[in-house]
Amino acid sequence: MIAHILSTGDEVLLGDIIDTNSGFLCQGLKDMGIEVQKIMAVGDDVEAIATVIEEISRNADICLVTGGLGPTRDDLTALACSRASGQRLELNPQALASMQSYFAKRGFVLNKDNEKQAMLPETSRVLINYNGTAPGFYMKINDCLFYFMPGVPSEMKIMFEREIKPILADEFSLNDDILIERLTVFGLPESRVGALLKGFKIKFPRMRLGFRADFPVIEVKIILINYDKDPNKTLSDMAEAKQWAIDRLENKVVSEKGLSIAQELGQLLTSQKKTLAIAESCTGGLIANMVTDVAGSSDYFLFSGITYSNDAKINILNVKRATIVEYGAVHEKTAIEMAQGARIKAGADFAISTTGIAGPGGGTEEKPVGMVCIGLAGPLVSMARTYQFSYGDRLRNKKMFAMMALELLRRHLAGLLETA
Amino acid sequence: MIAHILSTGDEVLLGDIIDTNSGFLCQGLKDMGIEVQKIMAVGDDVEAIATVIEEISRNADICLVTGGLGPTRDDLTALACSRASGQRLELNPQALASMQSYFAKRGFVLNKDNEKQAMLPETSRVLINYNGTAPGFYMKINDCLFYFMPGVPSEMKIMFEREIKPILADEFSLNDDILIERLTVFGLPESRVGALLKGFKIKFPRMRLGFRADFPVIEVKIILINYDKDPNKTLSDMAEAKQWAIDRLENKVVSEKGLSIAQELGQLLTSQKKTLAIAESCTGGLIANMVTDVAGSSDYFLFSGITYSNDAKINILNVKRATIVEYGAVHEKTAIEMAQGARIKAGADFAISTTGIAGPGGGTEEKPVGMVCIGLAGPLVSMARTYQFSYGDRLRNKKMFAMMALELLRRHLAGLLETA
Repeated sequence: MIAHILSTGDEVLLGDIIDTNSGFLCQGLKDMGIEVQKIMAVGDDVEAIATVIEEISRNADICLVTGGLGPTRDDLTALACSRASGQRLELNPQALASMQSYFAKRGFVLNKDNEKQAMLPETSRVLINYNGTAPGFYMKINDCLFYFMPGVPSEMKIMFEREIKPILADEFSLNDDILIERLTVFGLPESRVGALLKGFKIKFPRMRLGFRADFPVIEVKIILINYDKDPNKTLSDMAEAKQWAIDRLENKVVSEKGLSIAQELGQLLTSQKKTLAIAESCTGGLIANMVTDVAGSSDYFLFSGITYSNDAKINILNVKRATIVEYGAVHEKTAIEMAQGARIKAGADFAISTTGIAGPGGGTEEKPVGMVCIGLAGPLVSMARTYQFSYGDRLRNKKMFAMMALELLRRHLAGLLETA
Repeated sequence: MIAHILSTGDEVLLGDIIDTNSGFLCQGLKDMGIEVQKIMAVGDDVEAIATVIEEISRNADICLVTGGLGPTRDDLTALACSRASGQRLELNPQALASMQSYFAKRGFVLNKDNEKQAMLPETSRVLINYNGTAPGFYMKINDCLFYFMPGVPSEMKIMFEREIKPILADEFSLNDDILIERLTVFGLPESRVGALLKGFKIKFPRMRLGFRADFPVIEVKIILINYDKDPNKTLSDMAEAKQWAIDRLENKVVSEKGLSIAQELGQLLTSQKKTLAIAESCTGGLIANMVTDVAGSSDYFLFSGITYSNDAKINILNVKRATIVEYGAVHEKTAIEMAQGARIKAGADFAISTTGIAGPGGGTEEKPVGMVCIGLAGPLVSMARTYQFSYGDRLRNKKMFAMMALELLRRHLAGLLETA
């Protein structure tokens, strides 16, 4: 099946916004087993939109279109569609009713501008907009089924999920009972993840792999479509594929549920009824920020001391001045004292710490940019590790340092830490 | 002039990555006065790429292409380009030399896979890759000038800036002396910014406005192209337009140089030789993280105490237990004591603090999700303010709270704070 995606709107072509809708729709279609061959974007120009719709109608089987359904003069999709299909625009009673109901719920009354949004090509059928006023619609032009959605992501997404997916599944006999398992991988480059999972397709021909890189983490998706009607068989097939992938990923799977390291760590702390303190120098609050991005983190997270200055390390975390004088702020001994200090000050079960050089300045030959010492203190543990990264970029270094610190404690709590 | 953009790569069509390159290039071209009419994306399929290049070569004057220049079998752009143009691929000595020099600097030796990257269509000319191995190239096919760049954003961006922009400016007699002024606006929705600046085009017909929203901040760009040969006139025109915009933006311009609030605050602290401490509860480290994202922040930033637990507020920041018992953790009195405590503990000139409800849980009727108290302590100031936001989203609340805290101190240091 040939699927195209078209987004309309000057704001994309002027570079004022990034078109994230197309990526969302590609993923959504992929998860249903449909691969997109071409993505296009054109501006708010009725001739340009009509021309590209006409082109697509001769080349594709389905096309998802976003944007241009609003009440203003810039919103030209229905008009362009009418030109491309040779159909008149007429007031669609279902579209009007859906808008009236949306407005009534909010105590508003329809005006003439809004009524324009219900003027649709003759053979079109309405797609309900659950999050806004502009109804969507779908219709066949030549041999291609076009689905027209608003450009506002929150309106588009729910329309795709609730309205379009069921129609697609039905129209193209697709099975929408899709099973997806997600693995979060940390510590391997994407090319290496791909190489390690080579052979998956041969071993599990009914499944597909998907990858999504979000530095420095890679999400691996295992997707099973059109699966066996015996649910036990399906689940055991999936479990087998998942275990196969985990076994090959060199102990670098940090979550078997697709969670972030901070979320996994939060679950471990919660289930073990342990609390957390942090002492950050070079990561500058990023670790605490990641930890507190997780809803409910106040159950286990007590305190982080962001001690950028040496005095703060000494006065607030009780790092010994002699340690800093003798070894410097960036040293495993300092990292351990920072973690111990934070742990004691906060009365926490565990503490992690970072001290390093995020750059761009501050590096020396002995302690270059990208070097970090990570400390860990707990009831039965007191240790530090040193790493050297070569991103040469302050924000990447901060992120990598922060993830390494979270990962050190996660491995410790999960019983995975090799004792040095 | 008709400009198109094409990105190639399965990862975009599978929805695994969002194509941010096209948006960057649209902006870059717009800043040169070139508006893009169409954006396209196709997968790693030599036929599909060749077909779309052929199509574009008959419809556009210039086309920027990203992706597919690497050493692997998936990298098919040069081959597709050879098919679309009817030209043979041959070893391009300049491309080879540029790769050899890149490798030599890093102590590597070229292998056969890499040499493939120097096989380019006969009439193509090389674009230097400053951040990677794959050279870019440009060539004319039919009447269209194609510029081929790598898909890796860091490699693409510098190639566009350093290599392609000068060629475009020269080739199309564009004036590359474009003047752009940037204003950072915080505290107004995008639609309001647009409404306030209505009339700009009539008043300043030679200039254009651009907007870029990055929640909760909006960057307003004032762009002057093909400007007067009298540089003094140009500068005074620009200054007039800038001041006109600032005057209309209701005191919500936080940087007249397009900087972030944290960067502006850093410059104020540096120039006034003042130091900063922070006490964060609900923002959980985000303020410190924003402050330390600025290179050189160690010159003024000393310490942040992320005190999620009440005990940490009491033990580390010396908040009075009686204050928390009587008024609660989320209260202006607590916020003030947090700021004062952080200031004294760190020996800093100024301190800011946050205590509030980021959600999704933890809200009450009296203190709902989205409520935050922000404290400020300094040599001559000790105050707090309470705000209520209704995003209902933990991460948005954290971000808004953090920005409000930074902005409170920025306004104080800039002498803009109305004394309550």
